[in-house]
Amino acid sequence: MSSDIGVPEPAAAEEGRAKDHASLRLWLRLLACHNLIENRLRNQLRLGFDTTLPRFDLMAQLARYPEGLKMRDLSRLLMVSGGNVTGLVDRLVEEGLIERRDDPRDRRAYSVHLTAAGEASFAGMAEHHERWVVDLLDGLPADDRARLHDILGRLKTHLATLPPLG
Amino acid sequence: MSSDIGVPEPAAAEEGRAKDHASLRLWLRLLACHNLIENRLRNQLRLGFDTTLPRFDLMAQLARYPEGLKMRDLSRLLMVSGGNVTGLVDRLVEEGLIERRDDPRDRRAYSVHLTAAGEASFAGMAEHHERWVVDLLDGLPADDRARLHDILGRLKTHLATLPPLG
Repeated sequence: MSSDIGVPEPAAAEEGRAKDHASLRLWLRLLACHNLIENRLRNQLRLGFDTTLPRFDLMAQLARYPEGLKMRDLSRLLMVSGGNVTGLVDRLVEEGLIERRDDPRDRRAYSVHLTAAGEASFAGMAEHHERWVVDLLDGLPADDRARLHDILGRLKTHLATLPPLG
Repeated sequence: MSSDIGVPEPAAAEEGRAKDHASLRLWLRLLACHNLIENRLRNQLRLGFDTTLPRFDLMAQLARYPEGLKMRDLSRLLMVSGGNVTGLVDRLVEEGLIERRDDPRDRRAYSVHLTAAGEASFAGMAEHHERWVVDLLDGLPADDRARLHDILGRLKTHLATLPPLG
């Protein structure tokens, strides 16, 4: 009897593997769709505005937070390392698209904001970006889009509640 | 009458905007799910195997092609620039996990392959990677997973048939 411990029956193991492979295939399919859309948008930003996706994403986060963002929060929202964000911020400040403002409550801290020029530049790009996204997703039937939105909402909620890793 | 040309009725414009925003929200939701899963897997590879996602992805592609891959094809499959792939390949060759082999039909060309050590190393990581993916997606009901797989399949087919930009 002890030989059974931890060793699934052949049929159950087979079933488990089939489910494993289904989950992996689902993730690879989501990854492929993400990569195809993101690469398309990346190329459109380059061809249409001579800019990069990280620059667009950074400006998009600042557009969502007119009260400005601390570097730490900006890094977290962009899910990239602090070093990369610092370099991007430096470049966009040089170009007059964003600015650093001192925090009156903390001399060592500052927040980052879009300038008026940055707001205007981002608004122009965002309008095209949204049009590109609409065109990319229009090929999917409307009821597929609605169901996809619902299911991804449940997936996002589940993923956001996972405990942090070790 | 000429004032109507190109100017949608207010109601139609409103409807168009609502659809636009729905598509953008759908893309942002897909992006969020992708980022949450990818960041989790990235951290698990780092904590469990002291390795990075680009290294894992490169070895995964070579595992899929035992006959080896040209650098050009490897870059295309990984959807990253050639320069980055060259640096990764150099490191993995130094570590004995992959090797370059001359192409007998073309003196200037070579292909890249997993070594036996690379195959063993990748097999160990791949088993854990699949388990992590299963655990991440298990929180979604089985019928949601099945429908998501179907809809993403249609989306992928649509995206893969888009004409190139430019």
